[in-house]
Amino acid sequence: MKVQNYKDSILAGDRAALARAITLIESTKHSDVVEAKELLQFLLPYSGRAVRLGISGVPGVGKSTVIDQLGTNLSLQGHKVAVLAVDPTSKRTGGSILGDKTRMVQLSQQANAFIRPSPTSGSLGGVTRKTQETIVLVEAAGYDIVVVETVGVGQSEVAVADMVDFFLVLLLAGGGDDLQGIKKGIIELADMIAINKSDGENINRAKQAANDYENAISIFTPKDTLWKPPVITISGRFNLGLEELWDKVLKHRDLMTKKGEFSTRRQNQAVEWMHKMLKEELLTTLGKNSRIAKRLPELETAVRNGQLLATRAVDEILALLEDNT
Amino acid sequence: MKVQNYKDSILAGDRAALARAITLIESTKHSDVVEAKELLQFLLPYSGRAVRLGISGVPGVGKSTVIDQLGTNLSLQGHKVAVLAVDPTSKRTGGSILGDKTRMVQLSQQANAFIRPSPTSGSLGGVTRKTQETIVLVEAAGYDIVVVETVGVGQSEVAVADMVDFFLVLLLAGGGDDLQGIKKGIIELADMIAINKSDGENINRAKQAANDYENAISIFTPKDTLWKPPVITISGRFNLGLEELWDKVLKHRDLMTKKGEFSTRRQNQAVEWMHKMLKEELLTTLGKNSRIAKRLPELETAVRNGQLLATRAVDEILALLEDNT
Repeated sequence: MKVQNYKDSILAGDRAALARAITLIESTKHSDVVEAKELLQFLLPYSGRAVRLGISGVPGVGKSTVIDQLGTNLSLQGHKVAVLAVDPTSKRTGGSILGDKTRMVQLSQQANAFIRPSPTSGSLGGVTRKTQETIVLVEAAGYDIVVVETVGVGQSEVAVADMVDFFLVLLLAGGGDDLQGIKKGIIELADMIAINKSDGENINRAKQAANDYENAISIFTPKDTLWKPPVITISGRFNLGLEELWDKVLKHRDLMTKKGEFSTRRQNQAVEWMHKMLKEELLTTLGKNSRIAKRLPELETAVRNGQLLATRAVDEILALLEDNT
Repeated sequence: MKVQNYKDSILAGDRAALARAITLIESTKHSDVVEAKELLQFLLPYSGRAVRLGISGVPGVGKSTVIDQLGTNLSLQGHKVAVLAVDPTSKRTGGSILGDKTRMVQLSQQANAFIRPSPTSGSLGGVTRKTQETIVLVEAAGYDIVVVETVGVGQSEVAVADMVDFFLVLLLAGGGDDLQGIKKGIIELADMIAINKSDGENINRAKQAANDYENAISIFTPKDTLWKPPVITISGRFNLGLEELWDKVLKHRDLMTKKGEFSTRRQNQAVEWMHKMLKEELLTTLGKNSRIAKRLPELETAVRNGQLLATRAVDEILALLEDNT
C-alpha cells in the first residue's frame, strides 16, 4: 500500500489499514522504515487529541478485566477506544499481556474499539518507540481514547507514565489486616490508584485499603501540589466504580488544562523522550565502532570490580571514539 | 607537586596535600587533568573502605548543625570524617551550602575532620564527577566516614543517593496537626528519615510526625524488602538521637553485607554511573558537530510544538552524525 493510500484510509477510520500501518511501523525492513517515516510525518498534525490513559498493575490484579469493561462502557457511550500495550517481556507465542483478544472479549466485539498487542521486538526502547508512533496512528484514525497497558514491573511503567496524560495504578487489598506493600516509586508515577476486585465480601477490605493508601499518599504529597492522586475502589468484573474512575481522569484533564499544565506536560514528555532516546541511540552507535565494542565490556568489568574509576572508563571510550572519527 | 608526592602524602594522611589534590581534580587545565587521572588510578586500590553516608534536606532543616554534631561525635570516637557536598547551585561567592567552614564550627576544629565545599563548576554532571573522584582521594587519605551533603532539590539528591551506601533524609515536623508534605520520590531514595529539631516543646510533635511517616512508609514498602527505612527523631542542636542515627547506618551496613547486597550495590552504582555519564558525554559531543549544534535546538522546538515526532528528530540527528564521520 502506498503512503497516500494509508493516509487516506487511516483518516477515514479504516481499521484494516490502521492495523497494516502499525505493522509497517513495527517492521525493520528499510523500505518499510522509509514509508513509515513519511506516513507518520503526514499524520502527525491529525494526532494529539485523544485522552491518553496509562494503566499498570502486576499480573493477577485484573488489568484485562478492567480495561475490557471500561473500554466497553466508553465505546457504548460513542467513544472510539484504542488499547495498546507496552510489555518488553512479551513473546510472539503467548505474550504475557494482550497475547490475544480473548482476554478482552466484550471490548473486542465493539466496532468502536481497536486492540493491539505489544510489539514483540526486544528492547524496552524499541517497544516504547513503536508504541509512541502507534499512538499517532490511532489518534489520526479518530480514536479519542487511547489506553496504554503495561505490566507492573521494571522500567516499562516509567516508559508508559512518560507517554500518557494520566497514569492509573491498579492494586488489590491484601489479605487480612495487612496491606500488600507496593512498589517504591509508584506514587511518583501514579495520578490515581484504584483498588480492584472491590466486590462481594471483599468490599470492606478494599475500602479500608483505599483509606490507608489515601492517608499514606497525603503524607507524601506536597501541600501545594496541583493534583493529589485519589484512591478509589472498583470492580472490573462487576462494572463498579468505573464511572467514577473515568470522571477522575476527565477532572484531572480539566484541571491541568485550566492551569496550563496539560500542554506543558505533553511538550516536556516529547522533548525528554527525545533526549532519552538520543542518549540510548548514541550508546548503541558506540557498538558500531569495533574497538569500542571490544573494549566496552572489559571496561565495564573493571569498573564493576573496582579496578577502574567510572570516570576514567568514560574518558577511554570517548578517546577511542575521537580517535576513530 | 608530582603525582608520586601527592600519592605518598595523601596515603600518609597529609590534609594540605589532600586539599591540593582535590583542587587538581577540579581543574580543567590539560596538564592537571592528566595528572589527576594518573593520581586517581594510583589511589583507587586504597579507596572503598569508608562508610559513605548521604544527607539531604531542604534549606532550614538543619543539615549543617546535624553534620557538625554527628561528625564531631564520630571524630571524638576516633573516626576520620570527611564532609563533601554536591550543590550545583553553589557559586564561588557565598555558595548555598558549605560556602564556608563557619557553618560547622565544632567539626572544623577537629583534627580528624576534613570539610570540603561543593565544586563550583556548573553542571550537576560535573559536580557529581568531581565528588565521586574526591571520595576516592579522601578514602585513600584514611577517612573512614564520608558524608556527602546535598540540598533537597532537583536531581542532586538522586546523584548523591547513587554514590553513597546509605541515604538519609532530614525533615521537620510541620506546624500544628499538619505534616508538611514531602517530595514525591523521596521514599524511593531514603534509607532512613530523621525528623530534626526534636527538642523542647517540639518533641511531641516530632514524635507524632515520625509515627505518621513510619505508617506511610510501611504502606509503600514491599513486605519482602530487606530494609524498611526507619523514621527517627533527632536534635542536631542538642545532640539528641545521633547515636541511634549512627547505629542504624551500621545496622544497615551489616545487614547488606551479610546478604551480599553491599558490594552488589556499590558495583551496580559504579556501572550505572558509567553508563549515565557516557550518555551525557555523548550528548555533549554532539555539540561539537557544527551542523548538529545548529540543528538540534530547531528540532527540539519542533518536537516541543508537536510539529515533529521525537523519533524522527532522533533519526535526523543520527543521520547528521553518520554523514559527518
